[in-house]
Amino acid sequence: MNRDFLSIVTKLNESKHILVVGHIMPDGDDISSVLSAKIGLERLGKEVLAGIDWRIPWYFYEFEEVNQIMTFEQIKESGFKPEVLLILDASSLDRIGRFQEYFETTNVFVVDHHATNTLFGDHNWVDTKFGSTAQMVMRINNELGVPYDENLATLNLMGIATDTGFFKYSNADETVFSDATKLVSLGGKVYLVSRIFENKRIEQFKLLSIMIDHLKLEFDNKIAYSFLSKADYENNNCSEDDSGGFVGELRSLKGVELAIFLSEYVTDEVHISFRSKDWFDCSKLATILGGGGHQRAAGCSLKGDLHVIVEEVIREAKTLFLTSSRSSVNLAE
Amino acid sequence: MNRDFLSIVTKLNESKHILVVGHIMPDGDDISSVLSAKIGLERLGKEVLAGIDWRIPWYFYEFEEVNQIMTFEQIKESGFKPEVLLILDASSLDRIGRFQEYFETTNVFVVDHHATNTLFGDHNWVDTKFGSTAQMVMRINNELGVPYDENLATLNLMGIATDTGFFKYSNADETVFSDATKLVSLGGKVYLVSRIFENKRIEQFKLLSIMIDHLKLEFDNKIAYSFLSKADYENNNCSEDDSGGFVGELRSLKGVELAIFLSEYVTDEVHISFRSKDWFDCSKLATILGGGGHQRAAGCSLKGDLHVIVEEVIREAKTLFLTSSRSSVNLAE
Repeated sequence: MNRDFLSIVTKLNESKHILVVGHIMPDGDDISSVLSAKIGLERLGKEVLAGIDWRIPWYFYEFEEVNQIMTFEQIKESGFKPEVLLILDASSLDRIGRFQEYFETTNVFVVDHHATNTLFGDHNWVDTKFGSTAQMVMRINNELGVPYDENLATLNLMGIATDTGFFKYSNADETVFSDATKLVSLGGKVYLVSRIFENKRIEQFKLLSIMIDHLKLEFDNKIAYSFLSKADYENNNCSEDDSGGFVGELRSLKGVELAIFLSEYVTDEVHISFRSKDWFDCSKLATILGGGGHQRAAGCSLKGDLHVIVEEVIREAKTLFLTSSRSSVNLAE
Repeated sequence: MNRDFLSIVTKLNESKHILVVGHIMPDGDDISSVLSAKIGLERLGKEVLAGIDWRIPWYFYEFEEVNQIMTFEQIKESGFKPEVLLILDASSLDRIGRFQEYFETTNVFVVDHHATNTLFGDHNWVDTKFGSTAQMVMRINNELGVPYDENLATLNLMGIATDTGFFKYSNADETVFSDATKLVSLGGKVYLVSRIFENKRIEQFKLLSIMIDHLKLEFDNKIAYSFLSKADYENNNCSEDDSGGFVGELRSLKGVELAIFLSEYVTDEVHISFRSKDWFDCSKLATILGGGGHQRAAGCSLKGDLHVIVEEVIREAKTLFLTSSRSSVNLAE
């Protein structure tokens, strides 16, 4: 068994006061991992607080347990003094936001499945073979003897389901399916997880129509991109949460290898998501632009005029796309 | 073990010439079941033809094996004389279209998971506890000793994945997940199945925008419905296949219990799909209107003017919705 895994399990077992934190701009895997660890460790009698230094998208509140995740301010004000900082699904220290403040005074454990992880903790269990960090938390909980009920099993499933696109991405391997089977056998319900995404508002459909109007294709339809401006969000009474699945819609177009969605929710602040189907390395493109992520799903944030950024990002994407295509042609020769 | 299952396996084992047929308006589970049985039985050295008396939606041709499914005319012309007619995923005899012609001269085996099955074969293995007919075919293949490779495992997975909404519906139980795990361990790839739905054309997005424009809500947003006319399809260079997932979009709206999508692809011929989330029995509504299906997914076809049919269907839906709501209220009292 992995040495870092065992060290982390042993030290968690010995610890009494644990602060579990996730990353900024949290996704389903992050929220699932944080809650599964928090609830699991509490069931072993430990004092645990959970924090994410970012607004949590409204649709995750379908699970009332999400209310247990505290803001940075709330945790500061509580006067909680953790011995351990358990950081989940975050590839680098800056990804935990202001919780970095606890870095010097605690024993820092990092559990993550991102290839770009900088191994910034005292103990780092980083394994890219897992489709989700939630599966790693499940292993920690199992090793610690955490009892599972329907609630915990469903919350833990959320990370597996969301980080594999509901079992649709190529990272949905045998381990993903057998882990999901185990959680389902413990009472976990994937359909409750899917409810998160079945709470659409009509306004989201209107926003989607606008995104479709802005859609452009490049390179013989291999790159698809679109954007939404602050005005698009405002005019339709939408927040950035409402466009969460749009990059996936772009990716679903026939022949598209790389999908790019640019979202200006705050004026002159643009969040960019990249998704690929087969071979394009999104994390490489995101890293060039100051972000990070996985091969098939990555992202970055840029400041400046939306339309200038759209041009810049598409130029970078096309350059990398062309170089990558060329090298793959070379490899085939 | 189930007696009908054993009879069917025993008799398939003894048979040399088998005609495998699916139902009209085939879906992913039907096509998966037909191909998995056809390829499986062929691997045991039998002569097998597969037929569906309906046009197969273009996106299924992502799998080249779909070309092995023949039309009624092709099978007639081949002069094939089957001893056995293996009918998959069809709840009544009329659902196999003109293949009914083979009913009198063959030994008829029915394998299906629909509660509305009329048990019309000589042997009927009908079990509603399965999320998909594909899982039942997998059991037949396993019992017969069919060797699986990546291709067959992926084709077999297609039915499980599509009939459970990619593991999102409430029928995605432990058996669904453990069957999927088994097929994935044999080389099955869910992401190849999902490709079927990642071949969208831009025109489909335009069609979706129109569907959104036609969207209406009833009963405090609990019923959502929309429609597309023949003109909507024609003006956007789309076929009925292009609106395959639209009823799911309607179902994904917050608070919606019942989603209804009406599609007039041929003038004055309307196909209607029903989907529910928690409690509404779609098969009951579909049956009233001359169709059939499952509790959470059902459908029917009606002839006449689209707008008249929209009114009629919504009236029936509202009546049943109200009665069902009332009885559920009564139950709670």
